Amino acid sequence: MAPTYKLYYFDAAGRGAIIRHLFAYGNQSFEDIRIPKDQWPEYKNKTPFGQLPVLEIDGQQVAQSRAIARYLAKKFNLVGKNDLEALKCDELIDTIEDFLQKGLKYFLENDPAQKEIHRKKFFEEDIPYYLEKFEAIVSKNGGYTVGSQLTWSDFQFAGTLAELEKHHAGLLKPYPALSGLIDKVSNLPSIKAWREKSEQKK
Amino acid sequence: MAPTYKLYYFDAAGRGAIIRHLFAYGNQSFEDIRIPKDQWPEYKNKTPFGQLPVLEIDGQQVAQSRAIARYLAKKFNLVGKNDLEALKCDELIDTIEDFLQKGLKYFLENDPAQKEIHRKKFFEEDIPYYLEKFEAIVSKNGGYTVGSQLTWSDFQFAGTLAELEKHHAGLLKPYPALSGLIDKVSNLPSIKAWREKSEQKK
Repeated sequence: MAPTYKLYYFDAAGRGAIIRHLFAYGNQSFEDIRIPKDQWPEYKNKTPFGQLPVLEIDGQQVAQSRAIARYLAKKFNLVGKNDLEALKCDELIDTIEDFLQKGLKYFLENDPAQKEIHRKKFFEEDIPYYLEKFEAIVSKNGGYTVGSQLTWSDFQFAGTLAELEKHHAGLLKPYPALSGLIDKVSNLPSIKAWREKSEQKK
Repeated sequence: MAPTYKLYYFDAAGRGAIIRHLFAYGNQSFEDIRIPKDQWPEYKNKTPFGQLPVLEIDGQQVAQSRAIARYLAKKFNLVGKNDLEALKCDELIDTIEDFLQKGLKYFLENDPAQKEIHRKKFFEEDIPYYLEKFEAIVSKNGGYTVGSQLTWSDFQFAGTLAELEKHHAGLLKPYPALSGLIDKVSNLPSIKAWREKSEQKK
């Protein structure tokens, strides 16, 4: 019998997005439990390490979004054709996380002077540095991040970059391969169907 | 033919340690290239994303220490007995990384007032929070982090916790299962032999 899955996360995209997208892609039903912010302090102590997302697999709780996503990606054949491609997925996913952390340093800073320093560094150094490299990789792989076929790395890239573009419209204009990757992932029939269903619920 | 491996890292343990330990455990020869700090600025631009470690597999460069370590762990049967245990390894490895990041926030802070805030939080909140949970996990699994047998998660835990104990002797005293894990990993015959060989070279 297939295991039952319950995903616990906030009522937001964030670090739950890739997990929900992978479930949608794999046509795997799951319970999408969204913890209201005011219930979080009470719920926090029931999680393995005080964080969300948590996935419950047949009642067993597991934390860490990338670990959970990798597990689902394996189930749905999204980890490349061999161990070397699985490694390339992991490499790129940890690298876009590094890039995201640099962005968060700016977004989450409260002190105006510090924020301006981080903003300048992020937009003038980190964005061109990483996005040029990412663009070259996706161009070389025929529109994918790894090995000329869809992997969970494409989901992670599309999600993170679409979020960035949402906050800073036009930012991805100089990067047609990355923009194309976002379109490709969001136009996958299973992802489109899931998105339309989620929007109807609101 | 087995691939040839070249590891590029600094002349330090740090994020290279787990990779070197996995090679030693797997009796897999590799070139252990240590970049002198003064050559780093020149070398940086030749890396995939401006960071070390980098592993060259038959001439192909790959970055990100956890991604590289996972790849080697698979080769040497250190990812547990099934996909769920592989997931548990990934979960714990990302969690001890979160814990390490909280420590680094304190260790790397230069402003004395901020450093004191981070120090207090790390020692009074983070250390007991995480180490109690880790201790319970290792106790439950008969001295291992995942599934009652050696995995790459044990290497990561032993390395990170031994480093902490080195800087703050006595810190692990209340956690006998974690102290036992460090001993177990460092007494593996392949690891002992490699360490003795490395020390002779100096």
